[in-house]
Amino acid sequence: MGEVVYHVDGVLVPAAEATVSVRDRGFMYGDAAFETLRVYGGTPFRWGAHARRLRRTCERLGFADAVPPVGDLRERVAATLAANDLADAYVRLSVTRGVQPGKLTPDEAVDPTVVVLVKGLPQGGPDGERVWDEPARLRTVETEPVPDKAVPAATKTHNYLNGILARLELRGTDAHEALLCSAEGLLTEGATSNLFFVRDGVLQTPTAELPLLPGVTREVVLSCARTEGIPVETGRYDPAALAAASEVFLTNSTWEVRPAERVDEHTFGTGPVTRRLQAAFDARVAELY
Amino acid sequence: MGEVVYHVDGVLVPAAEATVSVRDRGFMYGDAAFETLRVYGGTPFRWGAHARRLRRTCERLGFADAVPPVGDLRERVAATLAANDLADAYVRLSVTRGVQPGKLTPDEAVDPTVVVLVKGLPQGGPDGERVWDEPARLRTVETEPVPDKAVPAATKTHNYLNGILARLELRGTDAHEALLCSAEGLLTEGATSNLFFVRDGVLQTPTAELPLLPGVTREVVLSCARTEGIPVETGRYDPAALAAASEVFLTNSTWEVRPAERVDEHTFGTGPVTRRLQAAFDARVAELY
Repeated sequence: MGEVVYHVDGVLVPAAEATVSVRDRGFMYGDAAFETLRVYGGTPFRWGAHARRLRRTCERLGFADAVPPVGDLRERVAATLAANDLADAYVRLSVTRGVQPGKLTPDEAVDPTVVVLVKGLPQGGPDGERVWDEPARLRTVETEPVPDKAVPAATKTHNYLNGILARLELRGTDAHEALLCSAEGLLTEGATSNLFFVRDGVLQTPTAELPLLPGVTREVVLSCARTEGIPVETGRYDPAALAAASEVFLTNSTWEVRPAERVDEHTFGTGPVTRRLQAAFDARVAELY
Repeated sequence: MGEVVYHVDGVLVPAAEATVSVRDRGFMYGDAAFETLRVYGGTPFRWGAHARRLRRTCERLGFADAVPPVGDLRERVAATLAANDLADAYVRLSVTRGVQPGKLTPDEAVDPTVVVLVKGLPQGGPDGERVWDEPARLRTVETEPVPDKAVPAATKTHNYLNGILARLELRGTDAHEALLCSAEGLLTEGATSNLFFVRDGVLQTPTAELPLLPGVTREVVLSCARTEGIPVETGRYDPAALAAASEVFLTNSTWEVRPAERVDEHTFGTGPVTRRLQAAFDARVAELY
């Protein structure tokens, strides 16, 4: 395979030359929306859900009208995959508010910057390979999620320091993921993942009314659970709920369904509900091949 | 004067070619510290205070050891000013965590990206010209500040969406600045400015114990007030305190001391305390010429 190529502002460019202006608001302020998604057998998984969330983020940031049509974005993703000869990949698609006159208040006139980054990943589905080596070890951290009234949690933006600060708390430990609890002490999510656990045979996950980003993979897993006849509850849980759980797992587009073997001092095996949901998820991925 | 030149990653480059990698964490996550400052007669105003805050931000983000020494940063600023033939200017100095392997958790090994942007401004001091045309009109907004436990307010970073969302609430109004109140309903700051007001002859400003960024100009103004013998109080105030004020003004490095003529439906003139503090501030600036 040749050199890695990214898609920046409408053009394919070698990764080493893929840049944005230092005056791009995506750089200056993190004033940008993004999505990360997986491509299986050449097809972006749940493209529609990702494209809709990207649009909702841009709407909340007030520049949705400037975002290229969804078909155009999809073509950029396809062109980037083709240029890198990738059928199984990770994709990061960003849309920024672009370069504007030098003040914080955004101009109504937006010439967005669209960036597509890709990276090869193993094949997915029942015969695929996981991108993680082992079940996750989690730690609850002191960093709290940003409340909705400060920055809406349902927007996925280049303002990601909250998650970075949470992950920095893991330094010097062997944990993979930081679990954030709201100011009220309720479980919300991991820095880059949604949290699920099983108690008394019921699959539970924090409600999206809390300050968390309801992931596309979270939705797929909830749908799989309903199809599988697994009872589901979304609600408000404190860390003690995890201590009483029989299974814990995380979801995101890259990890898919990743079991957790430890949360703070509590240990867990990979249980039957997690395995059923992994299989159901893999079956949905298999439809793309 | 020739083409505008910026300083990026150790090199002076024409503004149109001044870029960072799309994989720079400053772009991907807003994972970067910055300062904005004014240069008067060739000398950066309160350089030490800005350099210290930049370092504190990088310490909180866990990459202070990778930041170039303060003298090196100052040389980059000086080189950028010289290349643009500017003695009176606005400077934006950013230090990012640079490019790292593609995951959210920061690597300990940091090769930072340092960016210096400059723009000419009028001369400052007693005979100078203000960068604003008129006193500010303020509106209190629904957007709340990010709590300290989510992202420390005392860090000045490329995660600026909170201020952008606050400013977006001003669309369709004639207001210049958004005033943010904490979840408890207490006044904190403007999107890019600190708030001061005068009640019963006492200069008041929200305490830095609240989630706000205590600006370098705020410190200078508090120092001017003490020198001038103006009574000062930092505390916790709700919007009703503003309604009862005789004078209101804002501070930041660019605006210096900017009177406010309106806060929501309340109007104010530029009063004697504001004028005294403007004069005292201008006198400190004059020391640089």
